[in-house]
Amino acid sequence: MSFASAQALVADDLAAVEQLILQRIGSLYAPLTEALENLVRSGGKRVRPTVALLAARFYPPPSRQALLCLAAAIEALHTATLIHDDVIDGALLRRGQSTLNAVWTPASTVMAGNYFFARAAALAAETGHPRVIRLFAETLNTIVDGELRQAFAVRDWGQPKARYYERIYGKTAALFEVATRSPAVLGDAPPEAEEALRRYGYHLGMAFQIVDDILDFTADEKTLGKPAGSDLAAGIITLPVYYYLQDPAQRDRLVALAEGTRSGAAVIAEMVRLIRESEAIAQARAEAESFARQAIADLALFPPSPHRQALVDMAEYVVARPL
Amino acid sequence: MSFASAQALVADDLAAVEQLILQRIGSLYAPLTEALENLVRSGGKRVRPTVALLAARFYPPPSRQALLCLAAAIEALHTATLIHDDVIDGALLRRGQSTLNAVWTPASTVMAGNYFFARAAALAAETGHPRVIRLFAETLNTIVDGELRQAFAVRDWGQPKARYYERIYGKTAALFEVATRSPAVLGDAPPEAEEALRRYGYHLGMAFQIVDDILDFTADEKTLGKPAGSDLAAGIITLPVYYYLQDPAQRDRLVALAEGTRSGAAVIAEMVRLIRESEAIAQARAEAESFARQAIADLALFPPSPHRQALVDMAEYVVARPL
Repeated sequence: MSFASAQALVADDLAAVEQLILQRIGSLYAPLTEALENLVRSGGKRVRPTVALLAARFYPPPSRQALLCLAAAIEALHTATLIHDDVIDGALLRRGQSTLNAVWTPASTVMAGNYFFARAAALAAETGHPRVIRLFAETLNTIVDGELRQAFAVRDWGQPKARYYERIYGKTAALFEVATRSPAVLGDAPPEAEEALRRYGYHLGMAFQIVDDILDFTADEKTLGKPAGSDLAAGIITLPVYYYLQDPAQRDRLVALAEGTRSGAAVIAEMVRLIRESEAIAQARAEAESFARQAIADLALFPPSPHRQALVDMAEYVVARPL
Repeated sequence: MSFASAQALVADDLAAVEQLILQRIGSLYAPLTEALENLVRSGGKRVRPTVALLAARFYPPPSRQALLCLAAAIEALHTATLIHDDVIDGALLRRGQSTLNAVWTPASTVMAGNYFFARAAALAAETGHPRVIRLFAETLNTIVDGELRQAFAVRDWGQPKARYYERIYGKTAALFEVATRSPAVLGDAPPEAEEALRRYGYHLGMAFQIVDDILDFTADEKTLGKPAGSDLAAGIITLPVYYYLQDPAQRDRLVALAEGTRSGAAVIAEMVRLIRESEAIAQARAEAESFARQAIADLALFPPSPHRQALVDMAEYVVARPL
């Protein structure tokens, strides 16, 4: 089964989630509404609501509306963080399109991000389930802590791998974790099932972000939708960089380039080439595959079913994205 | 009774609220923690948690901790919006201190604001009361809608007064409203008492913002903590400007200045002087006083008590701030 057929299993619910988000955007001001709707419609592959809806199949929540609100809240929160990232890391391209930051002022970008944050909070509150609302609020805390951690860790070339893990947990895995755990809470699943689904989301999210971080070195600008090496250009140490730095000779070479007097696209391209041609990519990839295998193992608790298979496929898809 | 003695009535709870917020800031990174703690400590007069704690005295909530979380959530949300305002309106001074925006990058300011948003959401979730959480989330929506409405209404010299009301509801009155209504919800007050406290908060918040908007013309930079006329400089039409524009001759004069080829501090100072010396200030002031009287009238439902008197005093204080 492919990603498309895994997603097809929840196609109706996924369409309802998108409608719910669009409906909540409302109609403040026509040109703005259009821009916000386009943001939602161009919204990537909907990986997070897809895994949430698949996870919900094990212990179907009594209220379909509560589940839709939850999945919509997760996607709205993801959209909010993407928008603010455009201010935070000054990105000019995302998903191959100009970011809001390139077209709008920072002020508009902040407000548009806040708009989706507020919608996410309202949708989470609408689930009416106190523990889900709390998990969601805690996730929001983890995400913003991760943003700050990343900002304070730039250009720290000697940082341990644990710092990277902390950061990608905040940046990505925490939201995947709440996406697969909360439907179990809504469905009143037994604690061990809730824990298995939480772990699945965590492991899937870690694998997902490591692959994203590898793609930043191995994919071209057209595939990436942004220039290669953009994290490294911002001084962010991702897993391929971490592995590259473990060899003392490589480390000296990279730090000399990064801290040297030359700057600009040519230096970034040289660093990207060094890392891409090193063992670091394979080492990082092995780690992503290990996380994906753990995600699949977390599902062993559940009897075989189309939705279990779809979640297995999602884990395989996440690490098989073109490298 | 004065503002200070009104606040003294809830001094213990107010100190506990501040502690709760400081505790939630945690210790991510020492220099950051210090900056965020200073933001909280320098946090103005705490008008919003004060009215929340006073409103709670009519129907004391069964859990003091839930009330403290609510009051802390309200103050944290207020702090978050103040921080983001520094990016949104590019202010360089607030409360007489350099804003984060002047010292930090826009990226850090966005992240610091998000940090307080997330803490606010978590504190609201901790009340454990679904309806309070929903009211809080709806308020967040109203606030961010207000930010966008303000951005899209700049330099629209012919806008009706209703637009100004909508904006200051989003900017200020919505948070006052939830601050005085939610304690009634937590305390399981009868519907008419909840409604009276909601209305009190609404009227108080409207009066508060109108006075703030008058002060932008009548106070000096030292008192304001920012240059006079800064809203007008940003093209924001507040109530004194609205009244000034109702006279056709005045309108022509102001629009010519605002849309003319001259720009800079001298033009702003001239516009400020014109408005300050006109009838517009007294007209706006009369409206603020009318809102304050309505706030006081909303309390007539309750028998006399020290906390009712303190809320009356708060309404009188809000419009008596030095003009």
